[in-house]
Amino acid sequence: MIEISPGPSSLSPGVHPFPHRHLLGINGLQPWEITYLLDEAEAWVTVNRGTAKHDGRLSGLTQINAFFENSTRTLLSFEIAGKRLGADVVNMAVASSSVKKGETLLDTALTLNAMRPDVIVIRHDASGAVALIAEKVDCPVLNAGDGRHEHPTQALLDALTIRRRKGRIEGLTVAICGDVLHSRVARSNILALTALGANVRVVAPPTLMPPAIEAMGVTPFLDMDRGIEGADVVMMLRLQRERMTGAYVPSSREYLAFYGLTRERLERAGKNALVMHPGPMNRGVEIESHVADDIHRSAITEQVEMGVAVRMACMDVLTRARRGVEGWA
Amino acid sequence: MIEISPGPSSLSPGVHPFPHRHLLGINGLQPWEITYLLDEAEAWVTVNRGTAKHDGRLSGLTQINAFFENSTRTLLSFEIAGKRLGADVVNMAVASSSVKKGETLLDTALTLNAMRPDVIVIRHDASGAVALIAEKVDCPVLNAGDGRHEHPTQALLDALTIRRRKGRIEGLTVAICGDVLHSRVARSNILALTALGANVRVVAPPTLMPPAIEAMGVTPFLDMDRGIEGADVVMMLRLQRERMTGAYVPSSREYLAFYGLTRERLERAGKNALVMHPGPMNRGVEIESHVADDIHRSAITEQVEMGVAVRMACMDVLTRARRGVEGWA
Amino acid sequence: MIEISPGPSSLSPGVHPFPHRHLLGINGLQPWEITYLLDEAEAWVTVNRGTAKHDGRLSGLTQINAFFENSTRTLLSFEIAGKRLGADVVNMAVASSSVKKGETLLDTALTLNAMRPDVIVIRHDASGAVALIAEKVDCPVLNAGDGRHEHPTQALLDALTIRRRKGRIEGLTVAICGDVLHSRVARSNILALTALGANVRVVAPPTLMPPAIEAMGVTPFLDMDRGIEGADVVMMLRLQRERMTGAYVPSSREYLAFYGLTRERLERAGKNALVMHPGPMNRGVEIESHVADDIHRSAITEQVEMGVAVRMACMDVLTRARRGVEGWA
Repeated sequence: MIEISPGPSSLSPGVHPFPHRHLLGINGLQPWEITYLLDEAEAWVTVNRGTAKHDGRLSGLTQINAFFENSTRTLLSFEIAGKRLGADVVNMAVASSSVKKGETLLDTALTLNAMRPDVIVIRHDASGAVALIAEKVDCPVLNAGDGRHEHPTQALLDALTIRRRKGRIEGLTVAICGDVLHSRVARSNILALTALGANVRVVAPPTLMPPAIEAMGVTPFLDMDRGIEGADVVMMLRLQRERMTGAYVPSSREYLAFYGLTRERLERAGKNALVMHPGPMNRGVEIESHVADDIHRSAITEQVEMGVAVRMACMDVLTRARRGVEGWA
Repeated sequence: MIEISPGPSSLSPGVHPFPHRHLLGINGLQPWEITYLLDEAEAWVTVNRGTAKHDGRLSGLTQINAFFENSTRTLLSFEIAGKRLGADVVNMAVASSSVKKGETLLDTALTLNAMRPDVIVIRHDASGAVALIAEKVDCPVLNAGDGRHEHPTQALLDALTIRRRKGRIEGLTVAICGDVLHSRVARSNILALTALGANVRVVAPPTLMPPAIEAMGVTPFLDMDRGIEGADVVMMLRLQRERMTGAYVPSSREYLAFYGLTRERLERAGKNALVMHPGPMNRGVEIESHVADDIHRSAITEQVEMGVAVRMACMDVLTRARRGVEGWA
Repeated sequence: MIEISPGPSSLSPGVHPFPHRHLLGINGLQPWEITYLLDEAEAWVTVNRGTAKHDGRLSGLTQINAFFENSTRTLLSFEIAGKRLGADVVNMAVASSSVKKGETLLDTALTLNAMRPDVIVIRHDASGAVALIAEKVDCPVLNAGDGRHEHPTQALLDALTIRRRKGRIEGLTVAICGDVLHSRVARSNILALTALGANVRVVAPPTLMPPAIEAMGVTPFLDMDRGIEGADVVMMLRLQRERMTGAYVPSSREYLAFYGLTRERLERAGKNALVMHPGPMNRGVEIESHVADDIHRSAITEQVEMGVAVRMACMDVLTRARRGVEGWA
């Protein structure tokens, strides 16, 4: 068992540190709530680096991972997180699911709910599908990515990575670069980083830049060289060709030339700029190998590590009420 | 740990309450044996509704789920049941199995057996395949559905649902409606419900009605309106188009019109008739959404909940001898 | 908990009984190291035959099974082994893996490593891929089969089976028969059995016989009748048609006639010759059913049983240092 930090001191006494039942997105979270989750995750990083990683506080609880869209690394991360916490973890395989037999999403939700899980982790290719399910079930739901909407644990792990490497988030300039239009990772990161006081820029070609993105409090750049100028953090996105329909799909060489993170281009960023990528990387497309493998600047594998810690924190926090943890019930 | 009910009082002292090694079907079970399993399951419903669902009585035991036919919900139900009991649960994936490499079913059985499991749960698309495997292995085998033959845990969970909602099974009129010909669910339910004293009717179009079904002690109806007249329970079956070969396949609209459970048609059933469906539902085909979602009459999600409890009961009971439980060894 | 045998007496005091971090192949292992693993596995056979198979010495540790190539029985065996030892076991499914999204093998390795596993089990269709991953991760790696290279746990389980049935390995004549060219099983077995002092023959048609195989210390035979003459052990290999490219692929009947293990042919082997096969078998191709099912001579299901014990032993031994076991840290 580990000692969990008592939560950020900015909380007034008596204020519940995380008054949400589900984690459907970063949207709607207060800055101190985000910080609270990061603080909790910090403690799990230490646990995960030790030998006895198994904690057991979720023992007796059932966690269902319902992934309607394939994602090896996110599923693995949530599965490891749940097992380390001692939960009985079951995965609902998408390929063989009843969904294929024409079952509606709500019927699937009601079916899962009837098995009395204590936490459900959902990934779905339709924006809003996770929120729809959350409305119908009696336990906490974690969004593991829904369509182009949100991917909150990705944003939390990115924020944690930045905070650990840079010591803070407030006041940093973060450039999020690439296929912003199709990216729930970009969306959740913009919400989290602006909430925590970072100056966020988004860099994308015109066809991959969401309209009116300024309304999210970010500065758009069509030119990558200008967009990453002096940035403290350069966060690359995966080029998701499979999501581009009806749009011009750039060749890898073309994309690298104009929007890839090359060694030369990185020179324009801040002196110790941190390089990030949510993975899996298309090496030689959105990021050059030399940059990805630069152990001083690249935080890419650290992001994966933070992912397990963040998911442990979220599942711990969200199940406290039903576990009868004092002050949460 | 929970207190397990001592078993039905109808048992003479000294009579073993469940003298079977496997659960291959409802066929061959005595009425009091069925009742005994329902009583045991009842206790698990309470456990599953609490917060500490993990029981641990199967800890140290290995459960293999060998699903040669895909079934998300049944697999999930058996997996959750086993994990809550503390078993080391492993799933044998069908898509990647040695069966694809031309291995015979008996070789697969011998291979699984050599890994020294304590319970094997099998689903197979061939009738009788599960019994064939059961003959070759040293541990209890549970049939999770084999071809058109049996699906005993489905019949048990349906019986438990009816008993809880109606207070009894004996004397009730139950109409099983739809694709009776291809349905192992229908077959196992007919066996269980007639054994427990219900009056069972089967309703199906001529092409989906098994010949000589009267021999099973049920009354066949080709007309649905007449078949559900005054019924206490209307149990719909899934229309399994994928199993219809060489027969006329009705359109959805056509099927709904003649054999679907519509709001109007349900009026003909008994006043508080219970609506059931084993899922996944084809809404608008065999059942209208309005009926499926009627929380007073539909027991569909409750059936799913009972499924986990019934499977926990069956696995507990069948492994007692090898766990050295007093009176069972 | 079980008492683990203290290791073979041939060890000088102070010599570490297994000074390897990974198990990538039989190549590089000293004879006493192989014997040590067999002795350890022997203890687990007893445990697995009992009722309380769960040991718990790996509790708190995370085991990732990363199977880039499908293999039901090997995955099942490693999964059962890990769960019986109490590890938190997670499987990385190949079909839905990031590899399909174009991620490089090394990136996958770094991603897995960042999740802080304590042991990784890898199967891959490319020779050397497992060693490549092992170089990049911080925890022990077990090779569960890589291309045509090695399959060390298969060789260990085969050696254990022989030692238990024949009482020794040294001095025995073992004929490995069939598709030697494509077989990592043959390769690992040749290395293990020659190291332990057996006289190894390989029997294959000219197109399936590796060139210069004599250099491995074995005697090649193109004629099966002569090759198994007087052998103490006849180890058949699976005919892997899927791996034959650009070569003449024999028909089943043709193969059985010239290189299959028939009842008549087996007469030529030693009086109590042991029959082995790594499975899954092509009955009627490389082995006749009558021979495979001869309970006195065939050790085929015992091989599967030894597989779980050997994998428990290897995972126990390889994780001792990180678990802080005295003398191993």
